[in-house]
Amino acid sequence: MTGTKTPPTRVCYRCGREAATGARCSCGEPLWLKIDGTDGVDATGRADRTDATRFSWPETSGSSIWRYRDLLPVSRPPGIGSVVGGTPLFRTPRLDDYAGCELRVKDESANPTGSFKDRGSAVGVARALDAGDDWVGTVSHGNMAMSTAATAASAGLNCLVLVPDDIPTERLTHIARYDPTLVRVEGDYGRLYDVSLDLPGVRFVNSDAPLRVAGQKTTALEICEAFADEGRTPDAIVAPVSSGGHASAIWKAVCELRDANLLNAESLPRLYFVQAAACDPIAEAFRNGADRVTPVDGGETVAYSIANASPPSGNRVLAAVRDTGGAVLSVADDAILDAKRQLARRAGLCVEPASATTLAGIRHLSTAGKIDPEESVVAIATGTGFRERSPLAETPESVPIGDLPERVASLVSG
Amino acid sequence: MTGTKTPPTRVCYRCGREAATGARCSCGEPLWLKIDGTDGVDATGRADRTDATRFSWPETSGSSIWRYRDLLPVSRPPGIGSVVGGTPLFRTPRLDDYAGCELRVKDESANPTGSFKDRGSAVGVARALDAGDDWVGTVSHGNMAMSTAATAASAGLNCLVLVPDDIPTERLTHIARYDPTLVRVEGDYGRLYDVSLDLPGVRFVNSDAPLRVAGQKTTALEICEAFADEGRTPDAIVAPVSSGGHASAIWKAVCELRDANLLNAESLPRLYFVQAAACDPIAEAFRNGADRVTPVDGGETVAYSIANASPPSGNRVLAAVRDTGGAVLSVADDAILDAKRQLARRAGLCVEPASATTLAGIRHLSTAGKIDPEESVVAIATGTGFRERSPLAETPESVPIGDLPERVASLVSG
Ligand SMILES: [Zn+2]
Ligand SMILES: [Zn+2]
Repeated sequence: MTGTKTPPTRVCYRCGREAATGARCSCGEPLWLKIDGTDGVDATGRADRTDATRFSWPETSGSSIWRYRDLLPVSRPPGIGSVVGGTPLFRTPRLDDYAGCELRVKDESANPTGSFKDRGSAVGVARALDAGDDWVGTVSHGNMAMSTAATAASAGLNCLVLVPDDIPTERLTHIARYDPTLVRVEGDYGRLYDVSLDLPGVRFVNSDAPLRVAGQKTTALEICEAFADEGRTPDAIVAPVSSGGHASAIWKAVCELRDANLLNAESLPRLYFVQAAACDPIAEAFRNGADRVTPVDGGETVAYSIANASPPSGNRVLAAVRDTGGAVLSVADDAILDAKRQLARRAGLCVEPASATTLAGIRHLSTAGKIDPEESVVAIATGTGFRERSPLAETPESVPIGDLPERVASLVSG
Repeated sequence: MTGTKTPPTRVCYRCGREAATGARCSCGEPLWLKIDGTDGVDATGRADRTDATRFSWPETSGSSIWRYRDLLPVSRPPGIGSVVGGTPLFRTPRLDDYAGCELRVKDESANPTGSFKDRGSAVGVARALDAGDDWVGTVSHGNMAMSTAATAASAGLNCLVLVPDDIPTERLTHIARYDPTLVRVEGDYGRLYDVSLDLPGVRFVNSDAPLRVAGQKTTALEICEAFADEGRTPDAIVAPVSSGGHASAIWKAVCELRDANLLNAESLPRLYFVQAAACDPIAEAFRNGADRVTPVDGGETVAYSIANASPPSGNRVLAAVRDTGGAVLSVADDAILDAKRQLARRAGLCVEPASATTLAGIRHLSTAGKIDPEESVVAIATGTGFRERSPLAETPESVPIGDLPERVASLVSG
C-alpha cells in the first residue's frame, strides 16, 4: 500500500499559509488539509481529484466515508477503517416537542468502535499506511483511544496510546481490548498534546490533527448529501465541542460544499456547538464576542468526554459559527442528563452524556427563539452510551407466572 | 398508520400448512411468513409485491432493511426501526490465518441498540403499528429486551418486557434506560415463551416469532446482495444459534433468493450455526443425525446469550443446514474467549462472547477440512461487547513525561 498517495498539503484557515507537514501554522492556528486538485498523483498516475470546486455528489452506492474519496487524499485502508461512516440519519418525531423543531439525529454510535472518532482514525491510519509508517499514536483516555487502537489493529499497524497515570481501571480495559501499547504518563497530561507531536517514530493523530479533521468532515458531508437527495439543506447542525477538531471538520465540509456550489453560500446550515457549562471556554469567548479562546479552570461535568479547558482548535470553532450564523453555547449538567433520558425514552437511543448536550442545546436555542419550530435541525449523537452504567431508578414489580394474565390485562387497560 | 398493510399469511416450512395468525403450525413446528404475492393490498390499492419469485435486487440506494420492502409485508415505522440494518460487511485480512479461509465479518453491532435483534424488532413494531396495536412485548433479559423496548419507544408504542425474577441489576439498567414496562416473573422462565403468547392485549415478538424472523432474514439478504454486486456467492455463512429464530431467518432469506433465481440452487451458501458446548442441543441432534432436537440440561457458558436448552426453532435449524450442506456445531468456552480476543486484536471488533462462537466455529471447521482456505466465509457478529466488562490482563507501564522521548524511541525501534 506504501506510497499510493502523495502527502497532502496543509493550509491555515485564518492566514492562508501553506505547509507540507505539521499540525500548526506559524501564526499559531491549527492547519487542515488543502483540497485543491494539486495534491499529487495516485498509484495509477492519474491526478488526485481532491479538488472541492470540481466535486459533485457521488453516484456510487457505497455508504462508508470512502464514497467521498475525491475529497480524501488517502487510500482506503483494510479493516474497520474501510467501513466507517455511512451512519443512520433519521427523524425522531417523538422528540420534536422537546426540541422545539423538526429534529433529526445522526447516530455516530453506529461506527465500529461506537463513536465519530472512527472517521478520523480511518484517515489517519490510511495516511500512515500510504506513508509506510509502522506506528500510529494518540493522546486520549476515551473514545479516541479506543478508536485509534482498533483501527490500527485491524490494519496491522502498531499503536501507542498515552493515557493519564491515574486513569480508572475500567476505562483502561475498554482501550486494552484492542491491545495497543499503553503508556501511563506521569506529569501534566495537558502538555502531552504538544509533547506527543515531537515523539520519534510515531504518527500521532490527535484530536484536531489535519488527518483526523479530514476524516471527521465526512459526518457533515453525509448529512448534507442526505438532505440534498431531497432537494433541501439542513437549517442547522448541532454537535458537542471539546478540542474543536470535530467542529472544525464540520465547518470544513460546509466550506468544501460551498466551494463546489453544492451548498448555497447565502443559506448555509447554521453550525451550533455545545459545551458543558462547567467547562465552556469556547462558549465564554463567543458570549464575550472574542475571536480568541482563553483557557479556563474547568470543573467536573457528566459530559466528561468534552471537558476541555484549553481547546486547541477553539479559535477555529469561533470562526466556524460566525461564518455560518450559528453559535457556541453551554448547557448545565441537569439539562444534559434530562436530554439523555429523553433520547433513550423517546428516540430509543442510548448515548453518552456528551452527545446529549446537542438536544439540550437545541431545546435552549428554540426556547430562546434562535431555532424555529418548522426548522430542520440535525443533532449529531457522537458516541454510544452502551459502555456506561447508570443507577436503576426503581426496582420493577415481581409477579408470579400464574398471575400474569390478570396483571397484564390490568396494565394494558390502565 | 393503521391498516396500511393487511396481515401476512403464515406457513409451515415442514408441512406447508398455512395459518392466518399464530406462531406454531398444528404439526408443532414454528411458522414463518409466506411471501408469495397474495398477501394483500397496501394503502394505495396496489397489490403487495411480497412475491419472492418476482423479487430482484433493488436499484434504490438506501441501506436499511427497507430496501427489501418487497419482501417485508409491513410498513416502514418511524424512529430507529426506520434505519436498522445496512450494517458493514468487510474483509478482516488479519484473521484469515486464524480462520483458515478468506474471512468477512458482518458487524451487527452497528444496529441502533447494538445487535441484530433490531431488524426483527423493527418488523414486529411495524406490524403492530399497521394493526393499530398499543402494546408490544417480549420475553428476554438481554439484547432482544433492549431492542424491543428501544424500537417501541421511538415509534410511540408501549412495551412490556418480561424478565426473570432474579435478573442481575446491571442487566436490568441496560433495558430500563428505554423505559419499557418491566415485570419480573416468579416461576419457570422457560415456560414464559408459550405463556406470553396467550397474554391479553400485547403483541409478543419473541425470538422466533414469524415477524421477527421476517426482519432478521435481512441480515442474509444484505450479505448475498453484497456478494452479488461482485458477481459472487458466499461459500458459507456462519452465525451463533440460540432459539433458532435468526438461523431460521437466514435460511428463509436463502430460500427466497433461490425462489427468485438470485441464488443458484446447486451452489447455495452453506449455513453453519454454532452453539456453546456447555449447552448445545441442536448440535447434539445434528451429530446424532436426528431431525428433532431433544432439550438438554444446559450448563453455564461465557456465551450466556445463546444458552438455550430447549430451542423452539431447533428442528427448523436442522432442516436449514441439511438443505444447504452446512452443519450445526459447538465450541468450548476457551475457544470462544480466544476468538473474542482475536476479533478485538486483529479486526478491531469488540463483540459479545456469543458472536465469537462464529470465528471459533470457522476455525474448527477449517481445521477439520470442512472449509477450504480459498473459500469466502461470512461470520455474523451478532452483538456488541461494549456493555461487557473484562478484567485487565496487565497494568501498563508508567513513564514520567520527561522520559517519554527516550522510552518511545526504544519502543518503536524494539
Ligand atoms: Zn496561519
Ligand atoms: Zn406444519
